[in-house]
Amino acid sequence: EIIASVLDFLEAADAPKPLLGKKAIVTSGPTFEPIDPVRFIANRSSGKQGHAIAESLAQAGADVTLVSGPVSLPDPAGVTLVRVETAREMLAAVTNALPADIAVFAAAVADWRAADAADQKMKKDGSGVIADLKLLENPDILATISASGPTRPALVIGFAAETQNVAEHARAKRTRKGCDWILANDVAPDTGTFGGDQNEICLITDDDEKTDERWPRQSKTGVARMLTARIIDHFA
Amino acid sequence: EIIASVLDFLEAADAPKPLLGKKAIVTSGPTFEPIDPVRFIANRSSGKQGHAIAESLAQAGADVTLVSGPVSLPDPAGVTLVRVETAREMLAAVTNALPADIAVFAAAVADWRAADAADQKMKKDGSGVIADLKLLENPDILATISASGPTRPALVIGFAAETQNVAEHARAKRTRKGCDWILANDVAPDTGTFGGDQNEICLITDDDEKTDERWPRQSKTGVARMLTARIIDHFA
Repeated sequence: EIIASVLDFLEAADAPKPLLGKKAIVTSGPTFEPIDPVRFIANRSSGKQGHAIAESLAQAGADVTLVSGPVSLPDPAGVTLVRVETAREMLAAVTNALPADIAVFAAAVADWRAADAADQKMKKDGSGVIADLKLLENPDILATISASGPTRPALVIGFAAETQNVAEHARAKRTRKGCDWILANDVAPDTGTFGGDQNEICLITDDDEKTDERWPRQSKTGVARMLTARIIDHFA
Repeated sequence: EIIASVLDFLEAADAPKPLLGKKAIVTSGPTFEPIDPVRFIANRSSGKQGHAIAESLAQAGADVTLVSGPVSLPDPAGVTLVRVETAREMLAAVTNALPADIAVFAAAVADWRAADAADQKMKKDGSGVIADLKLLENPDILATISASGPTRPALVIGFAAETQNVAEHARAKRTRKGCDWILANDVAPDTGTFGGDQNEICLITDDDEKTDERWPRQSKTGVARMLTARIIDHFA
């Protein structure tokens, strides 16, 4: 009922600004990891969920910096937008935006990048043989910021995009990364979550599975508003 | 002057249809090659050039099948659109659209795909170590159709996206692939060609570099119209 009333507040054009004075960092979209000047490793994140969260937090009065990978979305209203391509650029932009009270890591950051991105376009040599692509692990933005000591945001929220055992994997991820909350969602291809307009979230706030919140399947805007309401409640 | 007058024809709403009765296949956009359910190898092709060519050929009266990888573009008017993701799907769709009089391969087809695309999202195991990504060579659509025997289109046109020695690489590509014409362009990052609205073309129609046509830098729509005019002239 607290959430419902907060949602009503947020709908109103002259809504109060319960997050006024709070600084938030939101990441969104995919990262592109170059293989050579024309090729890259990408993923199916559209940025819709992260952009919706950034806009919703701004509507609630927060001072929002949105750090976004390449997306085909309009810029959300009322946020400071920082455009990046790679995971390393995203970490630098997030670090540069600290300190903050709230950090929501909704981007689908590539776990790996090509070890040796070529300066020139790689050519086939006619042999039909191509060397394996050597991969290096990217920096872990969620874990890095969760462990960032005095500049750690008071509330660090991650996403867990899983294709199986969603809540179990997400609970383990919360512990491993050291973040406060995890929004877990099922991105198996048959769900249409990646790139789609709907999302079904399981919010994990501690180690006890009995406290898992299973939110109804709803629009990504709806998820953003429910998350904003939970954040307002957390700081109230 | 032939080209200029043809261009004037094409501008007119009641333009004659010099390619009426001709069947054309155009490919456009990037291909996405899956690594696992969420990750893929992509490239920076926007599909703007291929889509513009498909639309321009259709305006000139051709019966156009556009085989397109994933793009964020409106569907061109007056063409049959077939959507694909991978190089193998693109080859199958092109083959399925044969016979044709004209084939223009403007898509940026991935040369390689992951050898073993995973059914489940690949997870980090905490070791920081990741196996090299094994790559397999994709089918070569331009070479396959150029060598397709009785169903070979009368005019097969490829693109050569190069980052250095553009005309020289493109002339070698024309011979190697067995196509008729190559439109060569420089896609080095500082040109802004990939994803941009402008293009600068060198048209190569035979082995003699003295016959290279260096078209002015112009919009991708302009390139499409010049190419359509050249095709009309070829069949006249």
